[in-house]
Amino acid sequence: MTDAVAVLGDSHTLPLLREILYGYRRFSELATLTGAPRSLLTSRLRRLEAAGVVTRRRYSERPPRDEYVLTEAGVDLVPVLLALKVWGDRHTGGDATPTAIFRHRCGAELHPVSVCGACGEEIRAGEFDVAGGTHPPVLRP
Amino acid sequence: MTDAVAVLGDSHTLPLLREILYGYRRFSELATLTGAPRSLLTSRLRRLEAAGVVTRRRYSERPPRDEYVLTEAGVDLVPVLLALKVWGDRHTGGDATPTAIFRHRCGAELHPVSVCGACGEEIRAGEFDVAGGTHPPVLRP
Repeated sequence: MTDAVAVLGDSHTLPLLREILYGYRRFSELATLTGAPRSLLTSRLRRLEAAGVVTRRRYSERPPRDEYVLTEAGVDLVPVLLALKVWGDRHTGGDATPTAIFRHRCGAELHPVSVCGACGEEIRAGEFDVAGGTHPPVLRP
Repeated sequence: MTDAVAVLGDSHTLPLLREILYGYRRFSELATLTGAPRSLLTSRLRRLEAAGVVTRRRYSERPPRDEYVLTEAGVDLVPVLLALKVWGDRHTGGDATPTAIFRHRCGAELHPVSVCGACGEEIRAGEFDVAGGTHPPVLRP
């Protein structure tokens, strides 16, 4: 996770990724939504490209214009973005918070839950412990 | 999510939260694990306290010593931290990445999956769309 955070961890990267996930792919849209100056937005997009989570796709030759789409690694960030949204909706902001409501393809309003891939139970703190690895945590109760 | 990111979004906050989740609660442990200078670690811990995700608990009166534990809002960050870990394990690092292996209480190695709370299906990009809210995304295919 240290490396995930190294890739994602400044206060502008995740909001920018969110807008791209939401389908805002063009520089001008991203500039408006994030409020970032153009030079800063350019460098952040380059950073996402370098990290392999976003790629450019040319949609106009004259004038030359690219849009930004998620790579497979970028699409794999969906659970992270959704988990952050769930937490933000619950614990921050209030009425002023811009909050989207999603509908899952099953028809229900989307409320993401993090479950164990084996048993399907919701994962809660204290209900898992360390089985190994190179950074063995303590996980005190 | 913008607000969630405002709380979490510097490159040091999530690694620090991770160590606390893993059960490293003492200043000296956190200093060793994060490699942060003491003054910086203090200010980051204060920031997490101010954000309401961590609280101090005195474990020694003489000398006065506090440990840092997750609040309820902090515990609610578990899905975010796990989703980041899944992504990081898949897309970053390699052998050099410190990676913990967890075991869920069901006995299986923990592989967190983000599912729809209604139908239980794994959530994938492109399988949900916008039903409303104050920041209506485009979600282009």
